[in-house]
Amino acid sequence: MSTVTLIGAGQMASALTFPLFENGHEVRLVGSPLDDDIMARLREDNYHVNLLRTLHDGIHYYNCSQVKEAIDGADLIVCGISSFGVDWFADEILPILNEDVPLISVTKGMLDYEDGTMQTYPEYWQTKLPEGSKLRIYAIGGPCTARDLADHDPSFVGYCGPDFETLEWIRDIFQTDYYIISLTLDVVGLECAVALKNGYALGTALAVGIKEKLGDDGINHNNMKAALFQESVKEMLDLLYLVGGGAENIMFAAGDLDVTVSAGRSRTVGLLLGKGYTIEETLEQLKGQTLEAVVIATRTARAVKALAKRGRVSEDDFPLLMHVNELLNEGKTLDIPWKKFQKKM
Amino acid sequence: MSTVTLIGAGQMASALTFPLFENGHEVRLVGSPLDDDIMARLREDNYHVNLLRTLHDGIHYYNCSQVKEAIDGADLIVCGISSFGVDWFADEILPILNEDVPLISVTKGMLDYEDGTMQTYPEYWQTKLPEGSKLRIYAIGGPCTARDLADHDPSFVGYCGPDFETLEWIRDIFQTDYYIISLTLDVVGLECAVALKNGYALGTALAVGIKEKLGDDGINHNNMKAALFQESVKEMLDLLYLVGGGAENIMFAAGDLDVTVSAGRSRTVGLLLGKGYTIEETLEQLKGQTLEAVVIATRTARAVKALAKRGRVSEDDFPLLMHVNELLNEGKTLDIPWKKFQKKM
Repeated sequence: MSTVTLIGAGQMASALTFPLFENGHEVRLVGSPLDDDIMARLREDNYHVNLLRTLHDGIHYYNCSQVKEAIDGADLIVCGISSFGVDWFADEILPILNEDVPLISVTKGMLDYEDGTMQTYPEYWQTKLPEGSKLRIYAIGGPCTARDLADHDPSFVGYCGPDFETLEWIRDIFQTDYYIISLTLDVVGLECAVALKNGYALGTALAVGIKEKLGDDGINHNNMKAALFQESVKEMLDLLYLVGGGAENIMFAAGDLDVTVSAGRSRTVGLLLGKGYTIEETLEQLKGQTLEAVVIATRTARAVKALAKRGRVSEDDFPLLMHVNELLNEGKTLDIPWKKFQKKM
Repeated sequence: MSTVTLIGAGQMASALTFPLFENGHEVRLVGSPLDDDIMARLREDNYHVNLLRTLHDGIHYYNCSQVKEAIDGADLIVCGISSFGVDWFADEILPILNEDVPLISVTKGMLDYEDGTMQTYPEYWQTKLPEGSKLRIYAIGGPCTARDLADHDPSFVGYCGPDFETLEWIRDIFQTDYYIISLTLDVVGLECAVALKNGYALGTALAVGIKEKLGDDGINHNNMKAALFQESVKEMLDLLYLVGGGAENIMFAAGDLDVTVSAGRSRTVGLLLGKGYTIEETLEQLKGQTLEAVVIATRTARAVKALAKRGRVSEDDFPLLMHVNELLNEGKTLDIPWKKFQKKM
């Protein structure tokens, strides 16, 4: 039995308590500064007001102010904050972590820089560690909605990090018969694959919105969705090569694309844009929800544009991403550039 | 304006008459020996009894006995037979074709040999050409259901063959604003990608059947489907490498997987097996339908087993395909080997 401390009590971190607790570990769940309402109710009856599921009785709850107590004696730390808390985590949590205790992050996303460099959060946090710290950072990616995981639906994800020895130890802590974990040392590949999928889930879900808007016209419109899915996989593979990730990570990108187009907020943004709403109207309808897909799609498009300026890629090779960016950031109306999808390969 | 002769009047060949006719070409549609009922009704009022759509008025219909007349003066021949007619096409049609007129095939599938070699139909037909024939064979792959194409839903496919010059000429003949075509010289890659997807569409659709059987249990089961989708993409990429196809063709495999899991007979086979029916019960329910997915999944699994015997691969690297094969050919009951999906990459 190990002691596992999860920092951030959002849906995914909280869903991860299911396999952890069922594997017999001591599970400590720490609310971030944004999680006060969640924690209050959890302490009452273990019900998670966003996940809409009741956690196992026996999980130890901590408020943010108790984080030092929560990490004391832990064998593994899990970062479960949203991508909007990445700097908070760097500033407030990284400095107090024991460098001998591995950290694994389930936060999906990435940063972009003016020269077009895309950076994963594990890489970013590595630069933020106290001087000389030997803290090893691992990460979780792949298609896994929190609610399905909490419901024990079979889920298949990827864990990545700097060495297989610790990864196998972490897998033993998490894996159950319904939560299956592949391991890879390709942190950039896995993390970028699952970050990139955000913009493309939004792009593919445009077809869902277009179909909904057309209503019952007697047409299945499966070809349209598959066309966007196919173009997404093509552009994601090109981006994977661009960041130096291995082609095999396209499995995570495609799997995560499938699940994200089926459910979730990225789907909803794409769906509303596909129905013809402007981005302002879309955001208005989704007020109060964290929309990581919008941020990450914007970052990816910005990186491609920066790389294109440097002559490393051509914007023409990413017509779907560019159109998503036009919808999100340039006030353009929906007009999928189908003809631009044609290529010579 | 060109003259295009389609041989085989099944759903896909007939759907292709829409872009061809709308682009102003003379379109000749030749029924195979199995298409007599289809042709009789088409001659009456252009209604296609399997496609369930009315073709454009002005298409020229030919019965099989008139095939020589139909190909006389054609600029392009399209092979639109099902995979069960591959040998008929080799024996009856190839010998009478003009070697200077390109042939493009929309027949999806592949053959396997005792040593585990997988062979695309264009490669197979190349071996069947009359001695010295210079006939060039091109092929069509990618996610495109016939009915959606007939309904002018945006569709995005791949055309492959030995040279870009003719491919671009063929694209000009077919492409419309709703039918978008990428080109590749990687015939093995594209054709295997879209053939392989059959077994995996069946494998991924197991989740659809399991969900249907569980009924309204309050669980979305999106993770389960994405897990199978992800494992499918992984195994398809490995198989692509194995046959010498380029990784970029995974876009076609994944796109085609998406559309096939959404609709079609491969989905139905997987769905019924997922609901717990035996393969015998499943085939009984689908009596009278051509089930190419079953044949192609069987061939793919047989090839992997043969290659495993020769030490070139391990069956353990294809757990989903192996389980699909157990369901189809070894009388096993449904028991998805989730744990076997875990890998070190």
